[in-house]
Amino acid sequence: MRVKMFEEFAQVRRGEVVESRHLGVAVVANADGEVIAGWGDPDLVTYPRSSMKPFQALALVESGAAEAYKLSPEHLALACASHRGEAHHTELAAAWLSQIGCEVSDLACGPEYPKHQDTQFKMIRAGQASSSLHHNCSGKHTGFLTVCRHCGYEIEGYRNADHPSQQLFFNLLADLGAPVDLPLGVDGCTLPSPALSLGDTARIAARFAAGRAPGNRAAAMTRLIEAMGRHPEYTSGSGHPMVAIAEATGRRVVFKVGAEAFLLAFLPQDGLSIALKVADGNSRARIPALIAILEALRMISRAEAESLAGFARPVITNSRQEPVGQIVPASFVRERQNKPERHSA
Amino acid sequence: MRVKMFEEFAQVRRGEVVESRHLGVAVVANADGEVIAGWGDPDLVTYPRSSMKPFQALALVESGAAEAYKLSPEHLALACASHRGEAHHTELAAAWLSQIGCEVSDLACGPEYPKHQDTQFKMIRAGQASSSLHHNCSGKHTGFLTVCRHCGYEIEGYRNADHPSQQLFFNLLADLGAPVDLPLGVDGCTLPSPALSLGDTARIAARFAAGRAPGNRAAAMTRLIEAMGRHPEYTSGSGHPMVAIAEATGRRVVFKVGAEAFLLAFLPQDGLSIALKVADGNSRARIPALIAILEALRMISRAEAESLAGFARPVITNSRQEPVGQIVPASFVRERQNKPERHSA
Repeated sequence: MRVKMFEEFAQVRRGEVVESRHLGVAVVANADGEVIAGWGDPDLVTYPRSSMKPFQALALVESGAAEAYKLSPEHLALACASHRGEAHHTELAAAWLSQIGCEVSDLACGPEYPKHQDTQFKMIRAGQASSSLHHNCSGKHTGFLTVCRHCGYEIEGYRNADHPSQQLFFNLLADLGAPVDLPLGVDGCTLPSPALSLGDTARIAARFAAGRAPGNRAAAMTRLIEAMGRHPEYTSGSGHPMVAIAEATGRRVVFKVGAEAFLLAFLPQDGLSIALKVADGNSRARIPALIAILEALRMISRAEAESLAGFARPVITNSRQEPVGQIVPASFVRERQNKPERHSA
Repeated sequence: MRVKMFEEFAQVRRGEVVESRHLGVAVVANADGEVIAGWGDPDLVTYPRSSMKPFQALALVESGAAEAYKLSPEHLALACASHRGEAHHTELAAAWLSQIGCEVSDLACGPEYPKHQDTQFKMIRAGQASSSLHHNCSGKHTGFLTVCRHCGYEIEGYRNADHPSQQLFFNLLADLGAPVDLPLGVDGCTLPSPALSLGDTARIAARFAAGRAPGNRAAAMTRLIEAMGRHPEYTSGSGHPMVAIAEATGRRVVFKVGAEAFLLAFLPQDGLSIALKVADGNSRARIPALIAILEALRMISRAEAESLAGFARPVITNSRQEPVGQIVPASFVRERQNKPERHSA
């Protein structure tokens, strides 16, 4: 029996009518590489984009660079961040750059205005230009620069796929069981971006969540997930659902979003992961789908789900802030619960 | 044989991999109410949103209000507009409001910063708050207020579905052959927004394009389409694809976009229309799909299509403005060319 490429993830309703629809693929995996639930085709290959940041930050810890530079959990959370350019993000990134003897101009990511609106407006009012420091990936880039400093790599060209700092990242993915010679795209921030199937992404993320790796790598994984879980306001920003969900679940559910509506959730206590992609790349369906999956699989309680209702079924308002519609996730019933063979590794 | 709800509209490619996908429904109709081509289910009901603005502006002309207030083609183009809040939009809207003895505070649309970035940044730099005048629908609202003044209706409550100015609009849709008692949602700008099937939307738009109506209504339709075709920079804004396509086709293709990726094209010379909805509401697939359909149906020449290549297959860049991907529309082959009975009215 053929698996459908996509399943319905959410409906966007206005009044009584469904106005728009989002499809997607989601895979729940454990650290043994088993897919324990799924919707849509787990073999679909796409880019996890910034959902790969915890993997990109791993060399920063396991190389000893984080130790050598005495990086705090906030630094590690920022290395994994798609941040919103708020003061707490850019001040830490600037101090960190200075500590490793780098300048903002060493960051390969181009300039970007903060995604945090108040901060953006404040900059525009002050006549301040957009900068690479405010780019949502500046923490990740600073992490790569730190690895370069610590390992004695040239900083020049660190954005290129053949640079040793990128090779560390690719080798790590292979170590975790990802296919070798992954197709590479270029990310919005100029770094190489590997393409993986949803199934493979979920499998390596479950190993990351469970700390299933030899030597000091397991401890490095745990340190990064704990940093993201303890300081989600550094990995995302004020008011971001990552903060609310980490708090509501007592840090049991830590996730990292990626551009074009990717999401990768790490559940360290369960040793599980959820990889999720909204087919059309629209992020508005991503969090409702995540919460619905967590609820369907009983990974969060009814009470936890209720405390997240505003993120689970976001209300759509008009320009006078009156409610006119709602995003309603699919039910994500465990349709494949009894047929694990269709999705096994 | 069952028609699929959606067909593929466009792929979003990054490097060698398809990163995201857009599905949709499109219907091409003539003024006899015949569907001459289609992709996806023409019976799908959704909201045309701002694509209805030419219909909403019709009472402004046929009531005699436009004549009485000596409105120019630019005024009519603005009444049909989802504008970008540039100076030429807001100055005309402000002068028009003053001419009918109204204030900005009479506009029911809430405040909005201009969608035109330079104008928005200029306002923020000047410490200027967002206003209803800058809302992309301020021209439509001023049109409704003008009808109220001319017909002696109360201005109070013109945003409500039972207000006589809204009833004029609903009656017009019924006159053109739309089903009666359409479901109503509330638009982003607070006005009632009717839901129609793609097929019905295309049929009434083809009648509009062909001026297929009794009395002075036909002339009113022609006047509005000519106004939009001659002054697309008032109906949209600087650099908008509506301007480029109107110019490239010698005003043969005039279209009006709506929120959540609706598009309604009027081809007055051919007496045809195209109604198009990207299923997920993402507007980036809309213009590539439109141009691909125009090309597949030979409604534009190869040379015209080539002059629009930047809109037909938009390049995706990273934060350093380097090309990293492309939006690639489906081929839109006329799969139903020989089976018109599947889609006839």
